[in-house]
Amino acid sequence: MSIYLNDIPLEQARNCFQQALEEAGLWKILGLEEIPLDENALSRILAEPVWAKQSSPHYNAVGMDGFAVRSGDTNGALPAKPHSLQIGTQAIYRDTGDPLPEWADAVIPIENVEPLDENGVITSENRHPAAIRIRAAVTPWKNVRPMGEDIVETQLVLPAGQSLRPVDLGALAACGESKVRVARKPKVAIFPTGTELVPIGQAVKPGDIIEYNSVVLATQVNAWGGQANRNPITKDDFQLIQKRVKEAAETADLILLNAGSSSGEEDFSARVVTSLGRLLVHGVAVRPGHPVILGMINREHGVGQVPIIGVPGYPVSAAMTGEIFVEPLLSRWLGRRPNTPEIIQANLTRKVTSPAGDDDYLRVVLGKVNGKILAAPLPKGAGIITSMVNADGVTIIPRGVQGAEAGSQVLVRLYHSSKDVENTIFAIGSHDLSLDLLAQALSGLDRRLISVNVGSQAGLVALQRGEAHIAGSHLLDPQSGRYNLSAIHKYLAGIPVRLIHWVGRSQGLMVHSGNPLNISGLSDLARPDVTYINRQRGAGTRVLLDYQIDKLGIAPQSIKGYELEEYTHLTVAASIRSGRADCGLGIASAAQALGLDFIPLYSEEYDFVIPLVSFENGLLDPVMELAHDPKFRKSVEQMPGYDVTHMGDIVADRLE
Amino acid sequence: MSIYLNDIPLEQARNCFQQALEEAGLWKILGLEEIPLDENALSRILAEPVWAKQSSPHYNAVGMDGFAVRSGDTNGALPAKPHSLQIGTQAIYRDTGDPLPEWADAVIPIENVEPLDENGVITSENRHPAAIRIRAAVTPWKNVRPMGEDIVETQLVLPAGQSLRPVDLGALAACGESKVRVARKPKVAIFPTGTELVPIGQAVKPGDIIEYNSVVLATQVNAWGGQANRNPITKDDFQLIQKRVKEAAETADLILLNAGSSSGEEDFSARVVTSLGRLLVHGVAVRPGHPVILGMINREHGVGQVPIIGVPGYPVSAAMTGEIFVEPLLSRWLGRRPNTPEIIQANLTRKVTSPAGDDDYLRVVLGKVNGKILAAPLPKGAGIITSMVNADGVTIIPRGVQGAEAGSQVLVRLYHSSKDVENTIFAIGSHDLSLDLLAQALSGLDRRLISVNVGSQAGLVALQRGEAHIAGSHLLDPQSGRYNLSAIHKYLAGIPVRLIHWVGRSQGLMVHSGNPLNISGLSDLARPDVTYINRQRGAGTRVLLDYQIDKLGIAPQSIKGYELEEYTHLTVAASIRSGRADCGLGIASAAQALGLDFIPLYSEEYDFVIPLVSFENGLLDPVMELAHDPKFRKSVEQMPGYDVTHMGDIVADRLE
Repeated sequence: MSIYLNDIPLEQARNCFQQALEEAGLWKILGLEEIPLDENALSRILAEPVWAKQSSPHYNAVGMDGFAVRSGDTNGALPAKPHSLQIGTQAIYRDTGDPLPEWADAVIPIENVEPLDENGVITSENRHPAAIRIRAAVTPWKNVRPMGEDIVETQLVLPAGQSLRPVDLGALAACGESKVRVARKPKVAIFPTGTELVPIGQAVKPGDIIEYNSVVLATQVNAWGGQANRNPITKDDFQLIQKRVKEAAETADLILLNAGSSSGEEDFSARVVTSLGRLLVHGVAVRPGHPVILGMINREHGVGQVPIIGVPGYPVSAAMTGEIFVEPLLSRWLGRRPNTPEIIQANLTRKVTSPAGDDDYLRVVLGKVNGKILAAPLPKGAGIITSMVNADGVTIIPRGVQGAEAGSQVLVRLYHSSKDVENTIFAIGSHDLSLDLLAQALSGLDRRLISVNVGSQAGLVALQRGEAHIAGSHLLDPQSGRYNLSAIHKYLAGIPVRLIHWVGRSQGLMVHSGNPLNISGLSDLARPDVTYINRQRGAGTRVLLDYQIDKLGIAPQSIKGYELEEYTHLTVAASIRSGRADCGLGIASAAQALGLDFIPLYSEEYDFVIPLVSFENGLLDPVMELAHDPKFRKSVEQMPGYDVTHMGDIVADRLE
Repeated sequence: MSIYLNDIPLEQARNCFQQALEEAGLWKILGLEEIPLDENALSRILAEPVWAKQSSPHYNAVGMDGFAVRSGDTNGALPAKPHSLQIGTQAIYRDTGDPLPEWADAVIPIENVEPLDENGVITSENRHPAAIRIRAAVTPWKNVRPMGEDIVETQLVLPAGQSLRPVDLGALAACGESKVRVARKPKVAIFPTGTELVPIGQAVKPGDIIEYNSVVLATQVNAWGGQANRNPITKDDFQLIQKRVKEAAETADLILLNAGSSSGEEDFSARVVTSLGRLLVHGVAVRPGHPVILGMINREHGVGQVPIIGVPGYPVSAAMTGEIFVEPLLSRWLGRRPNTPEIIQANLTRKVTSPAGDDDYLRVVLGKVNGKILAAPLPKGAGIITSMVNADGVTIIPRGVQGAEAGSQVLVRLYHSSKDVENTIFAIGSHDLSLDLLAQALSGLDRRLISVNVGSQAGLVALQRGEAHIAGSHLLDPQSGRYNLSAIHKYLAGIPVRLIHWVGRSQGLMVHSGNPLNISGLSDLARPDVTYINRQRGAGTRVLLDYQIDKLGIAPQSIKGYELEEYTHLTVAASIRSGRADCGLGIASAAQALGLDFIPLYSEEYDFVIPLVSFENGLLDPVMELAHDPKFRKSVEQMPGYDVTHMGDIVADRLE
């Protein structure tokens, strides 16, 4: 039996699931529990409103250390016309928080009275004198906290659905609660399935996939107020998966069956759901995450039904399925308002294309350049978990739209507060390994470095469009032999920039360890037994290659692999390491990082091009500090082929 | 010995504390621990950057279920000119995630091939045919996830200081981690002290103070990544407090000594700190929270010093001390970026006065009315924990400034995302107990009701200034005998509003249970043995009183307590209950709530006055729905003296 995917719109899938849950009586708070009012109540969700059992204060309380008096006795007291009040009958000392005596209606702070002894002489016995002298009248109820000042018995203290914060626990205690009635935590059973899966911490061989979706899903569930139960990996065995799901259904409130939700030969999820209950949805028109399954399972022994979600296997799809389907369900079960994210407007930094039939959840990073909020799209692949790690939010390119142009305005649902956007340094341009070191160092200095690797030329174009704070560039001008100056002239006319030297570095050919093909220079690229891996157009390294092979008289089409493009030195190195190619032009540190051999060919300058406007608000100050920080310089210098002698030197200023 | 408070500016206090911590070697991450990479790592803080141990994928992986091929073999295939590829030598089926065979460099998805049997006829054996026929060429590396596509070995995966989220754990697992090195949790010992304190859950008598500051502080500490240890209450006994602090200092990283930080007779904190180490600061120029103590204690047996904070006793002061001093210290110790809040601009709804010598931390609620963000100041008292519960943020009125005018622009540090502001309904005006029921019901409908009780007239003035969505009003026009119409005409000229009937209710005198003074009507207010408690000027109930006593010929100055004003029916009731007064005009439900007797005198209308502009964006739709919801009506009707027959009826529309 094969079950084919039939993607339906998200809204329809949600409605279908909700209807089934309603019919099963599961579209409401699952249940209550009463827990002690202590620090373990943090973030639990109030299941019922709390109306005050008692007032706070629960009596008329003295508000300041001082003397309780009848305000009427103080009428007429003036600096020049003091009154004396007898201790016991007219005044009595009370500490803050003490009950106000029945006969009193005001408090005079201790520092505003003159304590007197029996003879009417000022005494140092300031709390227990014989009398006090005052030089001002006090109004009724002054310095008294009347009963109910904070909370009046019977008033609403907190509404149902409140996620309890520290001060909420204080307010509950203040009005006499000692227990809290909260929504019980939904129990979520998570089953990772797949013969190819290996648990975290085990050595891997090609084809092994480290099973971490269950950790991501379990952590999401716990963070959203559920109680996750992570089960061990089940291999691709219909009977076994069915058995385990059936058992879990007896006690779980929700089952997440990870992977096997597509339509492949060993994708058993849909069949398992069908065999134990009802398959409601198989395939939702969202990317990533479309092969999702929604269903309801009948309990064999227990009463009622249990919802089950077949979660796609790609990590981004799995995490997105959590956000799209699991979070709203848990919110409903906990009686909490669903997590409606903050939404802001931003401008896309580059064109994106989207499948016309699906809602496309595009992850973006945000930065603010010249007062404009920019959204830089992250890689779209469903396998790229770092696109979730780096994302500030998602923008949804809706079904029926095939993409969005560079510069177009989009709405971004934020994953976290937009304040981080203010501290973000957008570096667009050429890739260098020192940018990772810089990112790490900046993270301790209240800055976040987002580097988008598009190559030197595209970086300068981004600066020209006002879409970055910094561009890393190493564009050689063959005529002058100098770096970047003529490119700045060409791409940044009219924009005042500062050119700052960052690093000197060694460019050369990365080759397999031991150099089995005996490659010695660019002339070997024309050999039919050598496969090259190239950098994208506009990258400084590509410009260097094209310039050098032209000098050598090698035609691009004679180089096998010339059309294969990667965007960073490290991905070039990874391509060689994985056997996709035999060599590639790049930097020594990338070769070393992946255990490749390196044939040094050229020394070059890698500079930062920075519009003067970027310096204005201090955002870049920490970058300049680090450039001259011996510890940071040393960390860069430790990479092979690097020269930091001139790091931070201004090569040229006010260039336009 | 007496130690007097000497308030110093916050910045100076912070610097002094930081310097002492630096000298003690405690202004850095306290230590590391290695924990398993599982769901318990949520929200732990990475102590070191993570550089990828291995690439992800760690091999060239098949990206879709399909046939691995050599792209070269597919060149020239066209719809009208299909190619056949032999299984085994030219093509082989692979599932998503399988390793790409060494000889292959691309994958053709299964749905794009025609499976053939030995005779070249299409077969249903689509995964294991004898050959496949294709009608399009495939480019090299199409549908392959090359090694390192997501993460390349050695690249920075996460910076130190990252608070781990679900997807971060996924990324760490993807690059081969099975453990995480995180900052160890700082151990914080919390000591509530005070003879007047009683634990949560115990019956109270006047003078008893429920001890909940330790719950608030402990929960704050835990929420900020520390590990709180809440100790039982210690009575006011210098020796005992000293002994317990001394013991705790041996193992704790930080000690919070709650209350006793002021300069009262039984305020031992400063002396305890002095006796065990060094008192650095006693008194900081902030309100609330000024009697704070900062010090360093020497360990008796262990090595080094332990910081100690004397936390003031008032609950708002205690919670603020947590935010101002504890959170930044924990952030430092965890290596996490301090909690820099989002800041927005808002306009104050009313004038506030502040002590000139202190930074005044004013709690505010926020709402958006006619596109303008408004900040309504909450009660300032340090004892009013609900001012923290209800706060959306704080605005700081700095030292040297004595307050701020109504309408002035302030910066508000948000406690949570500003998105809640959009769902907030600002109701300013007269107080009615049904507003609590409405608030609770709205909280389940994605709305938050903030009611500010200023009285009917002030509510209309707020509408006139565009500072509220709704005003509750019950202003009788003696001439016409109708409610609110003439007041709307007077205060809201030119502003189109809708007048909606909310409830009918009974006004009368609240008196002590059993009516010991035999009060029967307003004429009794002139009796010398009767103390009255009044509502503030502009309140509908005050207008009613003044109108009725005038008719009776009773002069205000002949009423004892006429000048005592409260802002709500409930606080009037609480004043009578506590013995401050004998009677007050108000509604039946408030009397019942606090167990008072009620002498009904008048029936009145309580209406909602709503500018038409407030209806525009659907914000108020749930209010109108509830007005006609039988369940909600019933909950209101259950209060004594309420009539909901006309709830939601439009009394008049497009009034100006």
